[in-house]
Amino acid sequence: MMGVGQPSGSEEDRLIAHYFRPLARHPGAFALTDDAAAIDPPAGCDVVLKADGIIAGVHFFPDDPPDTVGMKALRVNLSDLAAKAASPLGFLLTLALPKEIGDAWLAPFARGLGADADLFNCPLFGGDTDRTPGPITVSIAVLGSVPHGRMLRRSGARPGDRLVVTGTIGDAALGLMLRHDPAAGERWGLSRDQQSDLQARYLVPQPRTAIAGLLACHASAAMDVSDGLAGDLAKLCRVSDVTGVIEAARVPLSLAARTALACEPALIETVLTGGDDYEILASVPPSEVEAMRIQAHAKGVAVTEIGEVKAGPGDARVLNQDGRPLAFARPSFSHF
Amino acid sequence: MMGVGQPSGSEEDRLIAHYFRPLARHPGAFALTDDAAAIDPPAGCDVVLKADGIIAGVHFFPDDPPDTVGMKALRVNLSDLAAKAASPLGFLLTLALPKEIGDAWLAPFARGLGADADLFNCPLFGGDTDRTPGPITVSIAVLGSVPHGRMLRRSGARPGDRLVVTGTIGDAALGLMLRHDPAAGERWGLSRDQQSDLQARYLVPQPRTAIAGLLACHASAAMDVSDGLAGDLAKLCRVSDVTGVIEAARVPLSLAARTALACEPALIETVLTGGDDYEILASVPPSEVEAMRIQAHAKGVAVTEIGEVKAGPGDARVLNQDGRPLAFARPSFSHF
Repeated sequence: MMGVGQPSGSEEDRLIAHYFRPLARHPGAFALTDDAAAIDPPAGCDVVLKADGIIAGVHFFPDDPPDTVGMKALRVNLSDLAAKAASPLGFLLTLALPKEIGDAWLAPFARGLGADADLFNCPLFGGDTDRTPGPITVSIAVLGSVPHGRMLRRSGARPGDRLVVTGTIGDAALGLMLRHDPAAGERWGLSRDQQSDLQARYLVPQPRTAIAGLLACHASAAMDVSDGLAGDLAKLCRVSDVTGVIEAARVPLSLAARTALACEPALIETVLTGGDDYEILASVPPSEVEAMRIQAHAKGVAVTEIGEVKAGPGDARVLNQDGRPLAFARPSFSHF
Repeated sequence: MMGVGQPSGSEEDRLIAHYFRPLARHPGAFALTDDAAAIDPPAGCDVVLKADGIIAGVHFFPDDPPDTVGMKALRVNLSDLAAKAASPLGFLLTLALPKEIGDAWLAPFARGLGADADLFNCPLFGGDTDRTPGPITVSIAVLGSVPHGRMLRRSGARPGDRLVVTGTIGDAALGLMLRHDPAAGERWGLSRDQQSDLQARYLVPQPRTAIAGLLACHASAAMDVSDGLAGDLAKLCRVSDVTGVIEAARVPLSLAARTALACEPALIETVLTGGDDYEILASVPPSEVEAMRIQAHAKGVAVTEIGEVKAGPGDARVLNQDGRPLAFARPSFSHF
């Protein structure tokens, strides 16, 4: 993608100039006219790095609205930055497109991506566009910044910490089920709006960028919940070498999820293991929980305490109403 | 890819722990146990960013040796860093693999990639691995550093500058032709070794990392030659708003290319427009050419003067023996 001359000839050049140059507002992107970008990270800061790709037929549906594909591709990466207490600096885009993908798809894709690049203050630094015999593949590498040495790790959870989670859990996984089986909506007793809300949560995640700074102040460990709350909690606990215990009944649910669950209690497994939440799971010292909750609330992000961290061998448990551990067939979602 | 817990369960986790964790030697990669990496770029430096992907059936053959695929994926990015006068810091990897790709392919792929990560001092920072219904797709985002404000641009070429190029041009494009049409080797009068050398140039590019520092001292503009010398020169000239004039007879050729060209003079178009050279084209003030050539030679890199920069409207010309411009059917190679 980088390295378009001014007039130039190729179709790739035209697409880049037309659709992607407007997203490259950072002066160090040189309006995509060079081979690479050059940025001067904020003094005293570390650069935080994350790369994640989404593939048609794997992470999104080929007929998803293209603007939501652009938004999702960036947002899944921004979600990681937020969980690491980092502010976005910008991103690189590697796009592999089947031959049949032209302006009709690229225009809304770039519009969605560009709107989010603006919204999250995360400009395009550069990248690469190729044709592929395979499905649409959008790879994004995002850069963020944190004060030196202050990237929030998975490994800092300590016995006595409280476990908290942002927003609501399980909506995206239920939205995906509805996508596969639209009749489920009526079975679960959901209104049309509720069905649509759940599907929207799957289509376009909401990265918790707003509270990245708060996490740095209050949390001892954090990660974003992308592969299911139960499995992601287990990952955090393994790296921190602690045992995390959460209560299923305390996990925050949307009214739609609550309604569906009332009809079909077995959906609790989908809610807790389905993934695509892009909420933040954090381990927070007890003295910090209330301050964090109030400050997050002021930024429009709900923070709910769902359990606690105990000493123990790097494990996670989800307790039911009776205080017994729930067993899941597949505690963590994997696209692999 | 980031975010593997210690023991954990999934196949993806196993592959990452086994094959990719050993490549993540930078302390800021946290041995791939977190969601993101954190690096502290050298003080006083800009971070130079480039992302480029390679796709089976497009940029490499599905049956290419997997170690060369790993090497090529990293090297095409390192080539850009070198042309921008930047030193490698590390890279992010996004890997999309068809279901049938397992250890037999991943082991040599990671071995080749890891050897180059060591050789070029460019460790793995993190990334992502997914299954795809499409072909193997390897996306790499590489980070480098240059002293603040000193990234070598495409836009600095000035009338009076000399145009120089490293190494030899056209070998990879001829190697690719041989790959499609092995009988051509005999037709071109090439020895077995020569045929094999040309094919090797296509398989594994040689990024000119060794002279990145020299370029910063001596060149006014540079880019790597990846889409064909003629077309890439035109890109550089457009951005610099100058006219570049090179003489075909001065373009450095390997003995193999020279031999093939003697048999089939029309191959000059392939040589000058075929791409995949991963050499460096630079615009150098006349007073700097000799010093640059000598110092590059000392680092094992040949630098050849092939023409000069004139005032004019952002254009490029390749002259034949009689001083007339050559016309090409397709001046620049594009995978798009």
